[in-house]
Amino acid sequence: MFDTVLIANRGEIALRIARTCRELGIRVAAVHSTEDEDSAVVRFADEAVRIGPADAKQSYLLIPALIEAAKKTGAQAIHPGYGFLSEDPDFAEICAQDDLKFIGPSGTTMQQLADKSRTRGLMRDAGVPVLPGSTEPLDDWKEAKALADEIGYPVLLKAVAGGGGRGIGLARDAAELRRVHRETRTQAQALFGDGRVYLERFVERVRHIEVQVLCDAHGNGVHLGERDCSLQRRRQKLVEESPAPGLPPGVATKMGELAVQGALAVGYEGAGTFEFVVDEEGSFHLIEVNCRLQVEHPVTEMVTGVDIVAEQLRIAAGEPLSLRQQDVQFRGVAIEGRINAENPDLGFVPTPGRLDVFEPPGGQFVRVDSHGYPGMVIPSSYDSLLAKLIVWAPDRDGAIARLRRAAGEFRIDGHGVSSTTSFLSGIVDHPVFRKAEHHTDSVEQLQQDLSGTR
Amino acid sequence: MFDTVLIANRGEIALRIARTCRELGIRVAAVHSTEDEDSAVVRFADEAVRIGPADAKQSYLLIPALIEAAKKTGAQAIHPGYGFLSEDPDFAEICAQDDLKFIGPSGTTMQQLADKSRTRGLMRDAGVPVLPGSTEPLDDWKEAKALADEIGYPVLLKAVAGGGGRGIGLARDAAELRRVHRETRTQAQALFGDGRVYLERFVERVRHIEVQVLCDAHGNGVHLGERDCSLQRRRQKLVEESPAPGLPPGVATKMGELAVQGALAVGYEGAGTFEFVVDEEGSFHLIEVNCRLQVEHPVTEMVTGVDIVAEQLRIAAGEPLSLRQQDVQFRGVAIEGRINAENPDLGFVPTPGRLDVFEPPGGQFVRVDSHGYPGMVIPSSYDSLLAKLIVWAPDRDGAIARLRRAAGEFRIDGHGVSSTTSFLSGIVDHPVFRKAEHHTDSVEQLQQDLSGTR
Repeated sequence: MFDTVLIANRGEIALRIARTCRELGIRVAAVHSTEDEDSAVVRFADEAVRIGPADAKQSYLLIPALIEAAKKTGAQAIHPGYGFLSEDPDFAEICAQDDLKFIGPSGTTMQQLADKSRTRGLMRDAGVPVLPGSTEPLDDWKEAKALADEIGYPVLLKAVAGGGGRGIGLARDAAELRRVHRETRTQAQALFGDGRVYLERFVERVRHIEVQVLCDAHGNGVHLGERDCSLQRRRQKLVEESPAPGLPPGVATKMGELAVQGALAVGYEGAGTFEFVVDEEGSFHLIEVNCRLQVEHPVTEMVTGVDIVAEQLRIAAGEPLSLRQQDVQFRGVAIEGRINAENPDLGFVPTPGRLDVFEPPGGQFVRVDSHGYPGMVIPSSYDSLLAKLIVWAPDRDGAIARLRRAAGEFRIDGHGVSSTTSFLSGIVDHPVFRKAEHHTDSVEQLQQDLSGTR
Repeated sequence: MFDTVLIANRGEIALRIARTCRELGIRVAAVHSTEDEDSAVVRFADEAVRIGPADAKQSYLLIPALIEAAKKTGAQAIHPGYGFLSEDPDFAEICAQDDLKFIGPSGTTMQQLADKSRTRGLMRDAGVPVLPGSTEPLDDWKEAKALADEIGYPVLLKAVAGGGGRGIGLARDAAELRRVHRETRTQAQALFGDGRVYLERFVERVRHIEVQVLCDAHGNGVHLGERDCSLQRRRQKLVEESPAPGLPPGVATKMGELAVQGALAVGYEGAGTFEFVVDEEGSFHLIEVNCRLQVEHPVTEMVTGVDIVAEQLRIAAGEPLSLRQQDVQFRGVAIEGRINAENPDLGFVPTPGRLDVFEPPGGQFVRVDSHGYPGMVIPSSYDSLLAKLIVWAPDRDGAIARLRRAAGEFRIDGHGVSSTTSFLSGIVDHPVFRKAEHHTDSVEQLQQDLSGTR
């Protein structure tokens, strides 16, 4: 196992990773921007290196600064967390060149899976169902139209280099297609520096369900079940749970098996997530593969008892997986609610500022992953995720009741600081969520209902 | 289920019970002394009633005040927590007379089990092994001597009305017996208003292992496995864990089965704990039955996924047990460390005062049960338990590493306030504990080793 691991990230996930490192006896090297100098992971770490100013391009996204920090702290490995450079094949390659173990799949694997149209082809060939669409970029809108005419409208045009719900355009008929094709290419170029787009059949009122896989360097792979992440606001997940409620029998197991099959087919190494859309009949299609730890990984940990970050570290250190598929036991239901420093009454505008009060809930079957503490200044330069509130219970109704209890206990206050805690309580208490009738387009309706009751 | 439950307690356990009430949709009625008016449970409760001054005899131990508070808040049931009136048969009887459901066994059952010599007889008759000794009080020291001569020295003289490690005297030979018999009787009279004592063979270097049972009003009983609570300082538990490490195969299961058998034999109703001493060969003998929730119940909850307070409430409401023995699944290892507001460098003197900093640890598989919050004033009138830190991991080494990580994160500070957090870290990091070689007499040795390293 590594002596020292550098965590190339910030916020709650940096602390999350640091905690497991400490538990495994690994020295924790943190990095931070000037704005994050009093952050929780800096307080926790064995060593912390300031790598640049608040602007992420000059700190958390600056590869040379991270490599230098790793050298300086004597780290043998770098954990990229999520976001920032976590899915950047170049970063993985540069780490490898510098004899630093990148904790994640190889640059080659990431390169393949970062190309979302190519992923479709690879996975289709591996026997994983994908939506009808293209497995090559469609540079000419006429090509796109010919394919759309064949598979039927509506269709999505998606950036080949995209992911996380950005760089996507919807065309409901041929008339829209030309404009959307052009707009999505422009947007993709601006967002990802790569204007190539591909096409996929658009399915509505679906569930977003993802499978967590773990694969080692010795050809072993297991899945840790699925997570339902259908509740999204502007493609940012709000509430995630495991197992996915209301799936027809056998569907989740089949998705899990196929995800492992797909991962092994591309020589995947590390923790990864296979994202599917699932329709009301339980028919599922892969949409993309995420080559990193997900924000919502704790729900899987609560249900399986597996520390996914510890598994990532062991895999990166070359150890074989500590569990076989039959060792993975699923128990009960876990739900995670994201709490952002945002004002739900003002269109979810971020509310940076000083946290005067920060008292997380506690007690039975409650987990809080957060970098917040009383007196912390929430910076304005980064995303507004302040805390993840995760609960477990033997059944879904119990988990919902526990999440409401715990959300009600959470005290967050400060000058100008708001949080989405009560919005979260409202969401999980809404009949649509309680009855598990929600899908990827439900949030707007829920939001309207909630604002009506205020 | 009840509409409103009155919680006749304070501190962390009052909040613990309140949390489950809230999750089950039960209205929470709290009581508090003047000194506890800003306590966490008062902040959490739907309604709170001041029942008297700081002195527990005039508040938490004052039965008429509690009954009046229950009437005033419309409560149908009273949860007594632990300590205070939780094992007082009179309180249970008075509740019953006032049409209030006492959440615990009946007054009759508690009366039987409060008499520790009688418990020995009842349990021996039910097939549960007890240590050699008397099942009747021994008022005359000559009776005691005759019995001690028969079963062999050393022996303990114990208050019939005792429990929790108080009112106990050790005699290593006949010469000591007369004096110890007299002293223990005097002490028992002073502590419990009942000078009767009984005699039991004293076994040294044993493990203290207790079994959690749940029995409903319909004759069903299950056990939730065992807890090892051997690490005690002045008979106060410091660290508790489940399962008990290093027991010979089959011993824990047998203890569990016999505990249920013993509970059903006396018509036990509710959650209860059967305390055993276990020697190095795995031979076990019952020492007493506790008719209440234990401080250390969370380790059992972490391993089984069962909310014991919820089961207490359901049993009290007349519902049959929600699980059969084969439904109880044990997973991994949980360890609880108690954190007291005491100064370990000054003989563990309590340190009441204002908590300026209170930042509990978080993250994977960590649970904190505490009534602490930043700004809380720790009162001087009650016990010094400030927080219970409970962790879970797939194996014992992982749980120890996690407990150390979490204890290291805990920030507790204030004017004059100390905590036992780093003492706790030292204990669980000691080789004797890590190798599970500890027993009920180990703490002094561990404490010496730890103070030597400071």
